[in-house]
Amino acid sequence: MAEITNYKYRVEPQDVDFTLRASAPSVVNYILNTAGLDAHNKGFGVEVLQRQSLSWVLSRLSVEIDSLPAQYDEFKVATWINEFNRLSSTRNFTLHDRSGMQFARAVSQWCMINIESRTVADMSSLEDTYRAAMVACPSPCGKPARIGAIDPQHHITRPVVYSDLDFNRHVNTLRYIEMIFNALPIERIERNEGMRIDINFIAEGRWGQTLDIGHATDGNRTNFEIKADDGRTLCRARVEWR
Amino acid sequence: MAEITNYKYRVEPQDVDFTLRASAPSVVNYILNTAGLDAHNKGFGVEVLQRQSLSWVLSRLSVEIDSLPAQYDEFKVATWINEFNRLSSTRNFTLHDRSGMQFARAVSQWCMINIESRTVADMSSLEDTYRAAMVACPSPCGKPARIGAIDPQHHITRPVVYSDLDFNRHVNTLRYIEMIFNALPIERIERNEGMRIDINFIAEGRWGQTLDIGHATDGNRTNFEIKADDGRTLCRARVEWR
Repeated sequence: MAEITNYKYRVEPQDVDFTLRASAPSVVNYILNTAGLDAHNKGFGVEVLQRQSLSWVLSRLSVEIDSLPAQYDEFKVATWINEFNRLSSTRNFTLHDRSGMQFARAVSQWCMINIESRTVADMSSLEDTYRAAMVACPSPCGKPARIGAIDPQHHITRPVVYSDLDFNRHVNTLRYIEMIFNALPIERIERNEGMRIDINFIAEGRWGQTLDIGHATDGNRTNFEIKADDGRTLCRARVEWR
Repeated sequence: MAEITNYKYRVEPQDVDFTLRASAPSVVNYILNTAGLDAHNKGFGVEVLQRQSLSWVLSRLSVEIDSLPAQYDEFKVATWINEFNRLSSTRNFTLHDRSGMQFARAVSQWCMINIESRTVADMSSLEDTYRAAMVACPSPCGKPARIGAIDPQHHITRPVVYSDLDFNRHVNTLRYIEMIFNALPIERIERNEGMRIDINFIAEGRWGQTLDIGHATDGNRTNFEIKADDGRTLCRARVEWR
């Protein structure tokens, strides 16, 4: 059995929004970078998987944010894996400020795909390395919810552009989070009284496509569905304010 | 007289594009962050200026990039100020990889504005602190060119969104650089054989506006003009490939 691993960061100028605090998308960015770095440090990073034509794919994510750190604040991301089977792995995160207060937490579910066939791969080949990295500690918040189709009240369309692309020429995970926040009322973001985000990643957006970002609000909840111009759903999400 | 100051960085996952190398906008981001950090360390950062209702504004920038570092590569940004008068200050940069090879360089020109009146301020009040930070070393490349109005062949329009905004609720400088790169042919970005970028920042884009990104290509040069929906020019730029 392994132990929870901690990574230290600082809120950089590019992370803050107009409130001079880290934006929620930048917090998600630190969470995802920590996942990549910790997988690398423990022997199952993308560069190891690529030798077997495999890659990690984030399938679902839940994030709860109570408050956001200010520019140049230092903070710590703790991460651990507590579930693993042939088809899915669960990685957890808690975020703490310098005084040790937990200000955010997250649960992510990953699968593995074969890069060539683009199909889901069996993770059994990683089992030995992976078991050694497991930590017997429960997830810090509710697992990512399954989000259903929505009947959007509003639509935004935008092309996939160069700065959206990851190394696979697919839309970077973080861009979906930005699209979601760009569609939310700015006043709500400004007075952030705490939120929970649930996201399901369903298919890959590609260079040359135009995306449709549909959303519908009911009270404190806004549901999102992002589709490609061929009608395929790429991503569904829900943001719930406290 | 002061000396050239060095800052160390590493190419993080969010900095790379689909080539798995740092994107040109992310290199510009490191350059601008270094300017902020060095000003802070030498006693004339934004937080000192704000007490006098003043702020730095980037007016022009030239950047030459020969090659781009790969993900997780370490690199160094050297910076120094070599010119200063009542209305403008020149800050220079050279970027070096771990072997010491210079792979990029930049010259930036800054003015100071009064935050309340939004008018250009006299920098004489900073003179003593500033003189002590000057370095008698020439700029590493040609100063930023003045870019004239253009007759665009192509237009892209897009609204100003939450993730564009800086702490003033104006469009973040870096977003203009991204808009420019998002309009360039992706094949040209992919085979990057070296480039020079000249940018003039003219007015501030604001929340609620829709931007028009016009561009025209002549051989190896593409000129850009970004306007707000009231017709005001916010930014002009030129990208020249080698």
